[in-house]
Amino acid sequence: MAGRATAVVLASGGMDSCVLVALAAQEHEVAMLHANYGQRTMGREKRAFDAIADFYRVPPRRRLTVNLSHLAAIGGSALTDPAIPVPEGNLGREGIPASYVPFRNANLLAAATAWAEVLGATRIFFGAMEGDSSGYPDCRGSFVEAFNRLIEVGTRPETRIEVVAPLLHLTKAQVVQRGVALDAPFHLTWSCYQAEEAACGRCDSCLLRMRGFREAGVPDPIPYASAEASRQSAGGSQQ
Amino acid sequence: MAGRATAVVLASGGMDSCVLVALAAQEHEVAMLHANYGQRTMGREKRAFDAIADFYRVPPRRRLTVNLSHLAAIGGSALTDPAIPVPEGNLGREGIPASYVPFRNANLLAAATAWAEVLGATRIFFGAMEGDSSGYPDCRGSFVEAFNRLIEVGTRPETRIEVVAPLLHLTKAQVVQRGVALDAPFHLTWSCYQAEEAACGRCDSCLLRMRGFREAGVPDPIPYASAEASRQSAGGSQQ
Repeated sequence: MAGRATAVVLASGGMDSCVLVALAAQEHEVAMLHANYGQRTMGREKRAFDAIADFYRVPPRRRLTVNLSHLAAIGGSALTDPAIPVPEGNLGREGIPASYVPFRNANLLAAATAWAEVLGATRIFFGAMEGDSSGYPDCRGSFVEAFNRLIEVGTRPETRIEVVAPLLHLTKAQVVQRGVALDAPFHLTWSCYQAEEAACGRCDSCLLRMRGFREAGVPDPIPYASAEASRQSAGGSQQ
Repeated sequence: MAGRATAVVLASGGMDSCVLVALAAQEHEVAMLHANYGQRTMGREKRAFDAIADFYRVPPRRRLTVNLSHLAAIGGSALTDPAIPVPEGNLGREGIPASYVPFRNANLLAAATAWAEVLGATRIFFGAMEGDSSGYPDCRGSFVEAFNRLIEVGTRPETRIEVVAPLLHLTKAQVVQRGVALDAPFHLTWSCYQAEEAACGRCDSCLLRMRGFREAGVPDPIPYASAEASRQSAGGSQQ
């Protein structure tokens, strides 16, 4: 294991970040970074993060949870402001979703870059998906490029850190297939924006996840609250 | 006052940020953002921040303190790690100072941008000085440009926020002169990296401040610990 380059992986505890860790672990010593930013399912996400880190034997010194509680104080998102309802079943609509947390990924990547610089890591794995996942402006290829330019000019001259986004052009179904091929522990992951016991099966994040597993023809191993959601996520290729 | 555009000002509580607030207040409703990141003189800086905000009558809803405690957890700087000594009297040396906090300003500006987007602010005032202040990589014009590109691609399409750095090409002495012209309350500011009662007069930040006041020929109104420092900062133009 010695001599491999270190990579910082941004990991929420969801299915995308689980596949991201699996990809990073192929060629790097993995360091996993998690963020609390007042999101509703913060505790549940953190449990999933730790379970994935345990699975990949990431030692405590290479796990970091950062507290971006100012994003909750700033508000403006259904994910952090109890007064804004979590959107349900609106995947097809235009524009920026109500779950958009202003500039969240820049805040996350800034923390990751600081840690990467101190660790001597050469890459930051970022799970953004430009395609079917959302209309979030900070999940696009142009955002990744702009961030890499910021790192280039804003860190020590000898620092070489690159943000990579290997899921950027994949669909959710392709992420599921990639995960299956890498034996990623999907049973340990959590995606729901709304609930902590059984996934609600109705929020945007659940709908995207369920559609991904369904289109991949792979059963989703996590529990859902409603019988209909459980049935829909049980695999098969029905539309 | 109604109808003026809002500007977010990054304000540590030091002399530069005090002049920055004075500049911003000329044309904007000011919103002041302060960061705690485990720096040694955190409590003293926050008192200075609040005193400056009171002076400019910035209401509580337009004051925000963000907790970037992950920068302390990440370490790597004399400002946040008790094991790394604060540099003294090394202003002329080459390279990145030990007080450099990795990617600190990107973390600060990312928080400021999230807040600016929610407030509908159009500008972020950033007190970076390229010239005599330091060798920090995240204080250069190229860094400001790269950050503006990141905002352009990473926020809502209708969002228009620009980071401005009006002190970028000024010397510390010119900042003092600008502040005097604007009646900025220098007596409320704090710059020392090391002490909280009387400024130490020896750390890099004190040395820069003292030199700035001395070269501007203006007395520095804050107390210093040593008689020599007090004498040096008492104005005059001796080298």
